[in-house]
Amino acid sequence: MSLTIKVHLATHFNDLNIIQYQTNRHNRRKFTNYDLKIRPRPIYSSSPLTVYRPKMNVDSVRSSVIKSSLIEPDGGVVVDLVVPESERELKTEEAESMPRVNLTNIDLEWVQVISEGWASPLKGFMRENEYLQSLHFNCLKTKDGSIVNMSLPIVLAIDDETKERIGSSTNVGLVGPGGDLIGILRSIEIYKHNKEERIARTWGTTAPGLPYVDEVITPAGNWLIGGDLEVLKPIKYNDGLDHYRLSPQQLRNEFDRRQADAVFAFQLRNPVHNGHALLMNDTRRRLLEMGFKNPILLLHPLGGFTKADDVPLDVRMEQHSKVLEDGVLDPKTTIVSIFPSPMHYAGPTEVQWHAKARVNAGANFYIVGRDPAGMGHPTEKRDLYDPDHGKKVLSMAPGLEKLNILPFRVAAYDTVEKKMAFFNPSRAKEFLFISGTKMRAYAKTGENPPDGFMCPGGWKVLVNYYKNLQSEEATEQAAVLAS
Amino acid sequence: MSLTIKVHLATHFNDLNIIQYQTNRHNRRKFTNYDLKIRPRPIYSSSPLTVYRPKMNVDSVRSSVIKSSLIEPDGGVVVDLVVPESERELKTEEAESMPRVNLTNIDLEWVQVISEGWASPLKGFMRENEYLQSLHFNCLKTKDGSIVNMSLPIVLAIDDETKERIGSSTNVGLVGPGGDLIGILRSIEIYKHNKEERIARTWGTTAPGLPYVDEVITPAGNWLIGGDLEVLKPIKYNDGLDHYRLSPQQLRNEFDRRQADAVFAFQLRNPVHNGHALLMNDTRRRLLEMGFKNPILLLHPLGGFTKADDVPLDVRMEQHSKVLEDGVLDPKTTIVSIFPSPMHYAGPTEVQWHAKARVNAGANFYIVGRDPAGMGHPTEKRDLYDPDHGKKVLSMAPGLEKLNILPFRVAAYDTVEKKMAFFNPSRAKEFLFISGTKMRAYAKTGENPPDGFMCPGGWKVLVNYYKNLQSEEATEQAAVLAS
Repeated sequence: MSLTIKVHLATHFNDLNIIQYQTNRHNRRKFTNYDLKIRPRPIYSSSPLTVYRPKMNVDSVRSSVIKSSLIEPDGGVVVDLVVPESERELKTEEAESMPRVNLTNIDLEWVQVISEGWASPLKGFMRENEYLQSLHFNCLKTKDGSIVNMSLPIVLAIDDETKERIGSSTNVGLVGPGGDLIGILRSIEIYKHNKEERIARTWGTTAPGLPYVDEVITPAGNWLIGGDLEVLKPIKYNDGLDHYRLSPQQLRNEFDRRQADAVFAFQLRNPVHNGHALLMNDTRRRLLEMGFKNPILLLHPLGGFTKADDVPLDVRMEQHSKVLEDGVLDPKTTIVSIFPSPMHYAGPTEVQWHAKARVNAGANFYIVGRDPAGMGHPTEKRDLYDPDHGKKVLSMAPGLEKLNILPFRVAAYDTVEKKMAFFNPSRAKEFLFISGTKMRAYAKTGENPPDGFMCPGGWKVLVNYYKNLQSEEATEQAAVLAS
Repeated sequence: MSLTIKVHLATHFNDLNIIQYQTNRHNRRKFTNYDLKIRPRPIYSSSPLTVYRPKMNVDSVRSSVIKSSLIEPDGGVVVDLVVPESERELKTEEAESMPRVNLTNIDLEWVQVISEGWASPLKGFMRENEYLQSLHFNCLKTKDGSIVNMSLPIVLAIDDETKERIGSSTNVGLVGPGGDLIGILRSIEIYKHNKEERIARTWGTTAPGLPYVDEVITPAGNWLIGGDLEVLKPIKYNDGLDHYRLSPQQLRNEFDRRQADAVFAFQLRNPVHNGHALLMNDTRRRLLEMGFKNPILLLHPLGGFTKADDVPLDVRMEQHSKVLEDGVLDPKTTIVSIFPSPMHYAGPTEVQWHAKARVNAGANFYIVGRDPAGMGHPTEKRDLYDPDHGKKVLSMAPGLEKLNILPFRVAAYDTVEKKMAFFNPSRAKEFLFISGTKMRAYAKTGENPPDGFMCPGGWKVLVNYYKNLQSEEATEQAAVLAS
């Protein structure tokens, strides 16, 4: 039974408008049986500034709802599929006797994602029933009948030869790209990998040139293998960035340690410019205004597969460090961590995954941008997705009702104030939009962007990256010409 | 709160295995607060004979659950958007002053579908929020937070010129293909018609040659217009078949009049052969065995758009009549009626629509076949959908939990017994599968199918149809050659 009390609030808060206390039927935690629910009411006005209607605050009720865990993970517990150290030897021996399935680098990223519980309550690569639900409904029904969001099929493909080799075995060993045993998939199910249907239903197009499709799906086998995953030890990359790779449970612990009473997540796969920073700082200010005492920002760059022209992870992490060093974001109230998922560039379908994974990591506020996880159409001169569909679909997504969605306010360079500012359509001509492409063009040519676009330390990281890239490319070209 | 009591049952019933009594949170009927729920547990064995596991019956509890209305329509009431006669003149005058939108024949079929409540609780062509939910989640969230299934986008497309003509008007008049005012769409919303995305997400392919896409979507405008529908009078076709076109409410009334205690629906767009009849009669026998006293069969041919090589509606209706006249199906326990929806041929996505619409018409059992709403891939030599996906997706579809799904048992011609019988894989060689294509080939050449494949009266209807078609085609060819 769902008991809802709507509380109308006094203090102004631009992005939200209703607050509800609600008993949660599926809440399995013992220390509390209610959640703070702040449900945005979408307005989708033509103005990009105020997508969600004003109204709200919480002072009178705030103290009673501050909890050490702010939002329940999907399914009630964060899944952890790493074998306890005491069993590792035995399980490794066992795995050695099983038929083997070779993992690609991207398969391994998914192994990390599943094993650390980002996809909770998913406990392994999807079997067909889960795959079909994800593909058709973007959600899964759990055993108790409740719905969790699951918009991307998390699947493992194998080829005919591997399928034959597995035969009638019920368990298989998973072998990493380096040849080492990574884990076990138990009670397996093998079913057809209809690539065309998977692509069409996930991306809403089958046009050639989708990065994840070209890199992962097209070369993959014609079968999918699902089952229960066990990982022999935590996945590490030894790239100097592993300390940034906090699992959902580690993040939850860190939020608790910092006594966060609100966590707002920012998903990104690009360098942070001052417009992003403005948005994040403004969100914090608003949460404080609402009565939260210690809102923490989870700055959460995606660390898995990205397309070739995105800035690589190590460069981005260095850039993000500079942003914190330069004081553009406050290290005391910011946690920078890597989200290990690969990128699909699947727009409204993928943004649900990005949000759901952050729920599992303990974020109860999620900032959603214009055209999240979008890109240009691979064969036509237009955006692949309607730039507004991401936030609309996210706001209606089954299983994400408990998450507070904060739509991105568009920031641009204010040529009068000479800084990044929220776009004001009444003086549109005074704003300069600096796209990723334009930013890359600046960095490549060594030209400086307008003052105040990005902190100098962060900008330097990008300029160096593109300078090195160009000289590498020149060397390669020279080598090709000489050969 | 959901209270579930599992009742294990004594009598053998081949297709179902669990019975539950469940209080229904969203049940708005006053006379009862529980529903009989029979949930199939899918097994998906490799044998086509027993897809769902044996077990079950109900005698002890039966009498207490017989109800005049067997299943609640989605949203609690059957939507009826036909203007009361007393208001017709006034509304017609009002509509005449509005900007006009021209409907195609297929748009008009959807107007009938919506206005009669097959898509309840949908009250008009979809606005963008409904469209996006349908496309991404195959379901809609209602105002009270409950979920109803809605797998196909029910939308009205307009072109640039019409959009411009509508301007900022909030209401439009709908004009039928004959030029007459059909209805009004109020509080309209116009949004982009991204055809590629709609096709990919609905069909799981964008291959050229999908019948509904070629006929309806490709030639349609680049905008969709949603709003609240009012229909000035019931839609009629004056084709001699209107008496077969019972609305969901009329069907419910008829089931009540006949004191049905179970209604099992059979969706079809093909002639009925003795294999279908065997299945329907066998289902009835099983429902009687379960303790139902008066199960009624809803033989429910689809009456809207079908592809060119399907048998036309009038011929099918004549064939169905013969099947009842010849006593293959019992007229006393069968209602033959036309389902006015157009056909999408969208497999697992469409079968949900077919089932959901029958829930609204009062059917609490739904027979689902192999590859429902499927067809051959338009450009590859394979089925477009995995033949098992339809029943799997249907059994997991959000919002259809209250419907009892009866998977089709495959029937084929038993060459030993000389009749249609359930396929027995242990003597597979003695069975002859007669596909639609093969049946058409028989009818076209005038060759008789094996005795017992179809009742003679029904077969004659088909032979005549194909004979006339061939002579028409010959005449046309002669005319082309002579011209």
